[in-house]
Amino acid sequence: MTATDHIQALRALLGEKGLLADAADRVAYETGARYDQGRAAFVARPASTQEVSAVVSYCVRNGIHLIPQSGNTGLVSGSTPDGTGTQGVLSLERLTAPFDLDRANRSVHVGAGMRLSDLNAKLEEHGLFFPIDLGADPRIGGMVSTNTGGSRFLRYGDVRRNTLGLKVVLADEEGTILDLSSSLRKNNTGVDWKQIFIGTSGAYGVVTECVLNLEPLPRQTATAILVPSDPKDVPELLLALEEALGSQLSALEGMSDNAVRAALDHVPSLRNPFQAGTIPPFSLLLEISRSNAPLKGEQPLDQMLEEVLGSIWEGENALLADAVIGKPHEVWALRHALSEGVKNSGRLIAFDLAFRRADVMRFLDHMKEHMPSRFPGVQICDFGHIGDGGVHFNLVVPRDDPRAADPTFEDSLRAWVVDVCVKDFHGSFSAEHAIGRKNQAFYNHYTPAELQRLGAEFKSITSPGLLGSVEFGTPASKTAAIL
Amino acid sequence: MTATDHIQALRALLGEKGLLADAADRVAYETGARYDQGRAAFVARPASTQEVSAVVSYCVRNGIHLIPQSGNTGLVSGSTPDGTGTQGVLSLERLTAPFDLDRANRSVHVGAGMRLSDLNAKLEEHGLFFPIDLGADPRIGGMVSTNTGGSRFLRYGDVRRNTLGLKVVLADEEGTILDLSSSLRKNNTGVDWKQIFIGTSGAYGVVTECVLNLEPLPRQTATAILVPSDPKDVPELLLALEEALGSQLSALEGMSDNAVRAALDHVPSLRNPFQAGTIPPFSLLLEISRSNAPLKGEQPLDQMLEEVLGSIWEGENALLADAVIGKPHEVWALRHALSEGVKNSGRLIAFDLAFRRADVMRFLDHMKEHMPSRFPGVQICDFGHIGDGGVHFNLVVPRDDPRAADPTFEDSLRAWVVDVCVKDFHGSFSAEHAIGRKNQAFYNHYTPAELQRLGAEFKSITSPGLLGSVEFGTPASKTAAIL
Repeated sequence: MTATDHIQALRALLGEKGLLADAADRVAYETGARYDQGRAAFVARPASTQEVSAVVSYCVRNGIHLIPQSGNTGLVSGSTPDGTGTQGVLSLERLTAPFDLDRANRSVHVGAGMRLSDLNAKLEEHGLFFPIDLGADPRIGGMVSTNTGGSRFLRYGDVRRNTLGLKVVLADEEGTILDLSSSLRKNNTGVDWKQIFIGTSGAYGVVTECVLNLEPLPRQTATAILVPSDPKDVPELLLALEEALGSQLSALEGMSDNAVRAALDHVPSLRNPFQAGTIPPFSLLLEISRSNAPLKGEQPLDQMLEEVLGSIWEGENALLADAVIGKPHEVWALRHALSEGVKNSGRLIAFDLAFRRADVMRFLDHMKEHMPSRFPGVQICDFGHIGDGGVHFNLVVPRDDPRAADPTFEDSLRAWVVDVCVKDFHGSFSAEHAIGRKNQAFYNHYTPAELQRLGAEFKSITSPGLLGSVEFGTPASKTAAIL
Repeated sequence: MTATDHIQALRALLGEKGLLADAADRVAYETGARYDQGRAAFVARPASTQEVSAVVSYCVRNGIHLIPQSGNTGLVSGSTPDGTGTQGVLSLERLTAPFDLDRANRSVHVGAGMRLSDLNAKLEEHGLFFPIDLGADPRIGGMVSTNTGGSRFLRYGDVRRNTLGLKVVLADEEGTILDLSSSLRKNNTGVDWKQIFIGTSGAYGVVTECVLNLEPLPRQTATAILVPSDPKDVPELLLALEEALGSQLSALEGMSDNAVRAALDHVPSLRNPFQAGTIPPFSLLLEISRSNAPLKGEQPLDQMLEEVLGSIWEGENALLADAVIGKPHEVWALRHALSEGVKNSGRLIAFDLAFRRADVMRFLDHMKEHMPSRFPGVQICDFGHIGDGGVHFNLVVPRDDPRAADPTFEDSLRAWVVDVCVKDFHGSFSAEHAIGRKNQAFYNHYTPAELQRLGAEFKSITSPGLLGSVEFGTPASKTAAIL
């Protein structure tokens, strides 16, 4: 059979709207959010779990490698085809049904192709939201397969914690549908199989439907920017804030001076919140929130926050050098501009790392000390989710530096940073971006042999066909797709 | 080799304290918390992960079936040997090391043999606790293998949510140690294998060490007993309380009239909190708490609660018939006495069910309607965790009723209740007690064939040896142990 035969067969299964083959139609699906430009043999766009099953079954039987693609907002080359032109993209974008809200259960059953912003728009009138707060606007299936966390992890946890059920299509000859779509909050009647499909980049199956936990929308919010007396004090300050604020604490984000400066330089609408135009070496965005309305006689939340910060300020340890209560939208505008600012300030080499909470600042110190001798001229523009140990560790090479376009330089820089993270600090080289092609070599290098064996054998008992951009093991058939 | 030879060989591996073989020494390990009386060939008591590996390896190589036993407080016959006298108990009780507290990370690395009460006693001076609140006092390993929830699930979640890492010994010939004991809160660098060992009754490996999330101890608590205007209003009342109280809501427990009456009858120190000695058909224990100390000028928590309940009382829907703010220890004393009261009021046939939250009251209604004709004279004494859909659905047969001692009667009653739960209400037949021998038949009956296949194949790639009281699949060798 020729490529044209396969495309015709898939079109017969999925209809005209369900199969794109023209180069112009394919280009959006071949292009990644940050790094990638691949080439797809076709783009399949099934509109139901049954259709996903049909297309997966067809491709497994015919040795065609499928790359599931959700919102295509990921940063690790997980959702785009490689350059061979032999892989098919399996887009989830038409899987927007069902939308079954169970208000009393605070849960919703949705198609994996629903956009996060669309989901939250639909939930707003019910006073509910899916509490994963991201800069990007992914679709739900991709959020599950990367297990994203976001800025409010500290309060609400990650996608795993907020997933009650899944429906998954396995890459076997039958395109087996695993129905794990229970809405129960408690259920210990066997293996919780859905966990294996969360955070594994679609290697073990295609997530087609999700049952999600919802949370009441915050109805009171207050934010401040804090300057620790010394960046070393950040872990102690975090504990003091947790002690004083309890479960009201909904975000604590770290911002390096370089990242703040890049944002102020490149996003003109921003205002510098610090005194006299200075930028402290490290600052924190603090958010507290409550889902209940204020009670009679209760002081407004920002007054409460001011009082708490005052008592920490006056505390024995002098943890705070400065604190400015600011309007939430202004404070978050600065935080959200960091990414764009950093991207615009040179050639960006980005890492998404995680550590035990006390180790974040130690790692940053270590890097500031050793970067100038190891990789002179490389600027550290970190920011991230300090409350849960996450760091978007961004390195910027000046654009006029010849190393900015040198892949060997990037490789050796990446290898060194990841090695310090994993070996010296027992950290994670992918906090919330999962694996993708981008992190495959690190997975192969740092994952103990016994876990790689399990990963490969689990692949063979779930999805022996060619699926996704990650290899947890050698699939049954490593033959290149025949397109 | 004879049984004596094996016992000598194991004693050589584990030392005198590590191996018990005398009948008198074995009896505590052969007797379950509620139902069981089995017979063990020996009790192995390894004191480290390495020793667990050695004993598991020996037993796998010699075809000896091991039953891991943690605190032995479970209710589903998961931790005791059967009656054949051929199984060995693998007790975790000496696995009390390490105890590594990482205060800044709010986590602790502990041996799986540590008692919950000992753990929390050690954590108290640091203002922290492991937030799983149970009537029993299990050891941590057993909590992991049953994925318990408890009374504060609504606020803190289950053991799964609070487990950061595990160390596990597989039942293969090498006694392979899987080190999954990371303390990271975010890590998406592959499969999160620890999830498979949570809630699976030790079938896939022996949990020997755990890294746990800790929470700040509550420093303000207020409790009340609520009487809904109509039991049907409970889901609506739950939403109103969540809306008004947000993350301060830490428990909402349901109590049937029969359960309350049984507690008042059998625990003389209790006081009836309701008016004029009446007992409402259904009442609720509400707890709110904050981990922060009161701020200057802030009203005490019970005043705040009174105000919130007042506004719900005055609301349009008239959801509340009565509400009494009570001292936490008195209110919880009633709740904690329910189990003992019910046990003392006749022959107890207990279920641990879960539903979507709105379905709990519908299920109870259904049962009240149909029990009298199906199983006349059987009393429904339910109570449980209404905030997360859990119900301890307890049935009591009068002791002088001949059916009280009839196993056929119990079997048909159990089959009917579970069938209504699973088939008619899409509920769970084990909310937080896991499987054990007690629920094996229900697992076999209600688990889809495809998931049973996965369960069996995963067993063969992790722990092909004979381990635990649950069968997720046919082990490689079903030959009876040779002792």
